[in-house]
Amino acid sequence: MKAAILGFGTVGVGVYEMLQAAPGLDVGLVFVRPGKDDAPFKTSELDRILSDPTIDAVVEVMGGVEPAYSYVSACLMAGKHVVSSNKALVAAHGLELEALAREKGVGFLFSAACGGAIPFLHNLALAVESDRIVSVGGILNGTTNFMLDAMQTDGSQYADVLRQAQQLGYAEADPSADVSGLDALRKIMLACAVAWGKLPVEGLLHEGIESLTAEDVAHFMGKGLVCRLLASASISENGKLCAFVQPMLFPAGAPETSVKKNFNLAKYHGVNSGDILLMGQGAGRYPTASAVLRDLSDIRSGRRAMFPAGLAAACADNAEVLCRYYVRTERKAAALFPFAEIEDDNVVVRGVTKPVSVKLMHETASRLRKDGMPIFFAALED
Amino acid sequence: MKAAILGFGTVGVGVYEMLQAAPGLDVGLVFVRPGKDDAPFKTSELDRILSDPTIDAVVEVMGGVEPAYSYVSACLMAGKHVVSSNKALVAAHGLELEALAREKGVGFLFSAACGGAIPFLHNLALAVESDRIVSVGGILNGTTNFMLDAMQTDGSQYADVLRQAQQLGYAEADPSADVSGLDALRKIMLACAVAWGKLPVEGLLHEGIESLTAEDVAHFMGKGLVCRLLASASISENGKLCAFVQPMLFPAGAPETSVKKNFNLAKYHGVNSGDILLMGQGAGRYPTASAVLRDLSDIRSGRRAMFPAGLAAACADNAEVLCRYYVRTERKAAALFPFAEIEDDNVVVRGVTKPVSVKLMHETASRLRKDGMPIFFAALED
Repeated sequence: MKAAILGFGTVGVGVYEMLQAAPGLDVGLVFVRPGKDDAPFKTSELDRILSDPTIDAVVEVMGGVEPAYSYVSACLMAGKHVVSSNKALVAAHGLELEALAREKGVGFLFSAACGGAIPFLHNLALAVESDRIVSVGGILNGTTNFMLDAMQTDGSQYADVLRQAQQLGYAEADPSADVSGLDALRKIMLACAVAWGKLPVEGLLHEGIESLTAEDVAHFMGKGLVCRLLASASISENGKLCAFVQPMLFPAGAPETSVKKNFNLAKYHGVNSGDILLMGQGAGRYPTASAVLRDLSDIRSGRRAMFPAGLAAACADNAEVLCRYYVRTERKAAALFPFAEIEDDNVVVRGVTKPVSVKLMHETASRLRKDGMPIFFAALED
Repeated sequence: MKAAILGFGTVGVGVYEMLQAAPGLDVGLVFVRPGKDDAPFKTSELDRILSDPTIDAVVEVMGGVEPAYSYVSACLMAGKHVVSSNKALVAAHGLELEALAREKGVGFLFSAACGGAIPFLHNLALAVESDRIVSVGGILNGTTNFMLDAMQTDGSQYADVLRQAQQLGYAEADPSADVSGLDALRKIMLACAVAWGKLPVEGLLHEGIESLTAEDVAHFMGKGLVCRLLASASISENGKLCAFVQPMLFPAGAPETSVKKNFNLAKYHGVNSGDILLMGQGAGRYPTASAVLRDLSDIRSGRRAMFPAGLAAACADNAEVLCRYYVRTERKAAALFPFAEIEDDNVVVRGVTKPVSVKLMHETASRLRKDGMPIFFAALED
């Protein structure tokens, strides 16, 4: 099977190199921007790929919604299988792309868009065919995990570990998509769509790690707890979907606490299989490229879809999921939270709430911040 | 796709129930021993399955080498896909069964034979197609993990946790295959065959947990270490295979220490993907049945083989892998070990050796035991 590549950045170069070494897979043209086509294997004309009958599949590793969406649509229309690593694209246009791929009878897989090297969506899609999945989630953002791990290990402040992550290439110059939880949210949207055929488009909540301080970390560690940024989703008996991202605190010995540096952990719970956890590198040239090549192998073996038939948009409802929360805020805001236990130093209060809904907690925090009040919160694992 | 089932024990009943609920999969006849065919869906005549053109696949969940081998061979000969959960069968006759399945163009998958619900062999087989795997391994026996976890948690003696495991149905009346490491060894043999096309048949070493005492556990815990039974295999640049099972000690925070009760952890390292770890339930009715159904789905999607083409028998050579070992033995045997540090109470010595080969360590222990001398050893993670 011969695959062309759209994009020749970090992941594209990895895919190009791996395709040259993989038996049974060949590399076709690489699509780049005009002016960047400085070698015979590169082209800036998409038509050369679309019209080449020897190219069976196209790997999209450009990132971003446009022009990736237009290009991927054109490739599917031309009867090419598509493998993408682009979570923004699939979160925004998964419905249309899935419908087009089914209509054309070609494969559309995107394991690399969620969990990097971890074969998460691949296994989830396979599990769905014979098991009922009740929850999905995990540590899906390596940048924030690196930062949380460093804050815990060194006692560093947030700003220092962010700078360190940027120097090491784990965080971008504008880190907001990572540290706000938006990146993890896009990934859990894809997992919901694979697990339940519902792509959540509204009602999603994401709390990142931007409010975390070294003092919070010292406080958790004193209680033997470790903070991780978790994406969580589940479905109720009556089909109500919940999906959100928030910091969570885990006791020592929980699998989440063994996820170090920029590693990811993805998990799902099937009624029959029970808990399945997968750990590995969530980003990087070769880890991500390895997921792309796995998808190509999977297409070669006959698999076509990752989303179940009948995929539809859905709203998330986070009003029914209850968590106990660690909250740190100013004393004058304390009355807003149903604290079960509280420590008060006259300015700052830290406490653990009685169970409150995810929706209420995220909304309360958002309201406080609008009033200029600081708050950090993290759910406790119960 | 309609699947018949050979065997109606714990896993067989789970497969039967799951097949009735899975869309796109149907259940055919269930093969049982004469006299047990007390319902219309059961038969004790294999020919009724072999000659039924509506049966596409056969699930073998009988266990044991014979008559499973004869029956599975007959099913493949008759052009049926086969999914097996039987590690003893695949370890003993994988070569012949693989060759027969390829000749007949049918699928032969056996994810459930290694790791239970964990999609280990499935992902390994897929990874092999585009990545170079350099090591495989993990905690592949749930019985011993339950026992080790209980000894660590309660400070119990070996005999007490074995009895507890038997009462809970985690250990068999004759637990020797589990506690000696033989069960884990059979599973790592399958992983070697999937990863490298080499089914190791000679030179394998397995040390179980039968010599572990509550005093050893107290000693490890004092040093912050946790004992797990690890199966390990790797391949050198020049194609030399090593494969063995032995207790290992891990520091707190290592993923292996988060594997509780009878859970399993399987891992592989690919040159491109890096470390991939998978955790889940390694046994039980529905977890194992879920792996069987995943394999059936995989066959339905077009996948045929789990072993790579050109599978061959191989010898393991454990002379070149070096480990530092924790050793507890009698004082008079201490001179046999190159201790780097040692604690001596005049009767028993406990110490950590300089790096020694796996082969030498296992052989020395075996020689000592022949002389009636007690010894426990566990490798340190370096």
